[in-house]
Amino acid sequence: MSLANIKDSEVDIVIGALHSDLTSFMNEWRPIFSRFHLIIVKDPDLKEELRIPEGFNLDVYSKSHIDQVVGSSSSIVFSGYSCRYFGFLVSRKKYIVSIDDDCIPAKDSKGFLIDAVAQHLANLTTPATPFFFNTLYDPYREGADFVRGYPFSLRSGVTCALSCGLWLNLADLDAPTQALKPGQRNSQYVDAVMTIPSRAMMPISGINIAFDREAVGPALLPALKLAGEGNLRWETMEDIWSGMCVKVVCDHLGLGVKSGLPYVWRNDRGSAIESLKKEWEGVKLTEEIVPFFQLVRLPQTAATTEDCILEMATTVKQQLGPSNPVFTRAAEAMVEWVKLWKAVGSGSSPL
Amino acid sequence: MSLANIKDSEVDIVIGALHSDLTSFMNEWRPIFSRFHLIIVKDPDLKEELRIPEGFNLDVYSKSHIDQVVGSSSSIVFSGYSCRYFGFLVSRKKYIVSIDDDCIPAKDSKGFLIDAVAQHLANLTTPATPFFFNTLYDPYREGADFVRGYPFSLRSGVTCALSCGLWLNLADLDAPTQALKPGQRNSQYVDAVMTIPSRAMMPISGINIAFDREAVGPALLPALKLAGEGNLRWETMEDIWSGMCVKVVCDHLGLGVKSGLPYVWRNDRGSAIESLKKEWEGVKLTEEIVPFFQLVRLPQTAATTEDCILEMATTVKQQLGPSNPVFTRAAEAMVEWVKLWKAVGSGSSPL
Repeated sequence: MSLANIKDSEVDIVIGALHSDLTSFMNEWRPIFSRFHLIIVKDPDLKEELRIPEGFNLDVYSKSHIDQVVGSSSSIVFSGYSCRYFGFLVSRKKYIVSIDDDCIPAKDSKGFLIDAVAQHLANLTTPATPFFFNTLYDPYREGADFVRGYPFSLRSGVTCALSCGLWLNLADLDAPTQALKPGQRNSQYVDAVMTIPSRAMMPISGINIAFDREAVGPALLPALKLAGEGNLRWETMEDIWSGMCVKVVCDHLGLGVKSGLPYVWRNDRGSAIESLKKEWEGVKLTEEIVPFFQLVRLPQTAATTEDCILEMATTVKQQLGPSNPVFTRAAEAMVEWVKLWKAVGSGSSPL
Repeated sequence: MSLANIKDSEVDIVIGALHSDLTSFMNEWRPIFSRFHLIIVKDPDLKEELRIPEGFNLDVYSKSHIDQVVGSSSSIVFSGYSCRYFGFLVSRKKYIVSIDDDCIPAKDSKGFLIDAVAQHLANLTTPATPFFFNTLYDPYREGADFVRGYPFSLRSGVTCALSCGLWLNLADLDAPTQALKPGQRNSQYVDAVMTIPSRAMMPISGINIAFDREAVGPALLPALKLAGEGNLRWETMEDIWSGMCVKVVCDHLGLGVKSGLPYVWRNDRGSAIESLKKEWEGVKLTEEIVPFFQLVRLPQTAATTEDCILEMATTVKQQLGPSNPVFTRAAEAMVEWVKLWKAVGSGSSPL
């Protein structure tokens, strides 16, 4: 992996702290995270003090910082997993890596520790190929190339704006699936990265991602908040919604999205059966959300990620709003987020 | 892999014999092929007698059979790699598996022999999911499932009509790439199968494929014949053209295409540098072919694979024909192929 062009100082690692004791999480990640600046955002609903081990270069943000920046806005809620978006907002770095606090580094099929940050940065700094699928996966990987029949004019690729990593052990299933197969664990280590083709939609998970903040930062936003959302992944939809937004933006702006490596190891947490009641709302909304994002097209005049999000917010309000107030609130949050991003982003240095 | 629903008698293995001595090839595949009926089509340009070891259930077709069926047609040329298409034409089975005669069974990452036929049939008999990408790859694989955010309404999937396998050792590169990296070999065993999203185009290779002949058989056709085409893979484009035809047909008819497992082991053959001169024609044509197939849309009235191919032939002639006579000839071959398919396919038993 050639990361010659990235300095450690161009990267923020953003962690949403949903647990007060980050000791074990941070110590597991120490060999990988310690070179980088970390932004830890404490879930504003979390009462206990955070416990963070020594030896990291980090800034911690809590409810008071959030209130100070967001002020009286009521559209955007940073509680639960959404707290991480505050970290995306206050970062000033080109690249952000964000990993859930119930994940630790995974090992590859040979038993070696996987440097998830290095792999994410490799994904982001090599081109993506969204306009034609390469059957041998990432053509920029060592030992790989474009296969016969791949047009030479498309081989230089486009900028990769988003890297979506995967999960070993507890996969990112929804509550009904996890409840149906309580013993199921993902042990399939698939040694590949690929570009998701343009116009193909996918369920982007917020568990283990990295992105080019300068290119698509404003598209990673906390907009869809379920009424009964808790702080277990399978109770949330914010990342699925945000993921469709960012995929539509990337397709419109000619940027790429990769999926595959790196894996992280996800520890068990919570009872899927307890979550089932809450999850059904998200499962039902998905049926409306997916066709919407598959069909939405942005006008040529939308030339930046901010433009795209504002255009999409209008369409969400018009097309999805009438069927459920949760969509109207999401549209409002999208507009509010772009305002915030411009306001906070205009500052010359972090808080 | 659950193959409970497929009988061995529903499968033909079609081999285009470009080499006269198939002894080693057949013996390597014996543990896998011997249960099935084989159709071996001898390249009509090949002068020597075929050498085929004992112990297989097979039919061999040569130039005289081809002449008898095709008669005076001059649009379709069955020489070189295109001889296999004659096997597709005369088969009466639901499923066809076709593997180049310079490939032998590969071994998986644990050193076990890969049963490529079983994997292809597993790919074809489990649903495909072209309308939404599952980040954990084939959701029907044991231990896998749909990830959170995948719409339940799309989880039953669609019929998989085409399974595209991959290659270890000598990858399916074009002549310029292979000539530039003469020592490059593919050693990356990626343990995954995935559905290629609807409307995404890909370079389908004819080296190692399987398909549902009843569903899309007429779309696997020998239409694009390069002027300087030889009998090395990197000198051909017939499979790339046919692959785009079948992908467009699958997208139109709501069928799926999978790519990934199984791998075969491809032995070295020929000099890429010698082939470079011939290959440039194909490389240049690709630049016209790909945008054409990406944009072509079929009318709702095209309800069968035959209809789709005839519609595409008309569009090829109109849109690509003026730029190069090779495209006009391809369009004529497509029309002729559908005629042949209907004529030969109407017979109640194989030749």
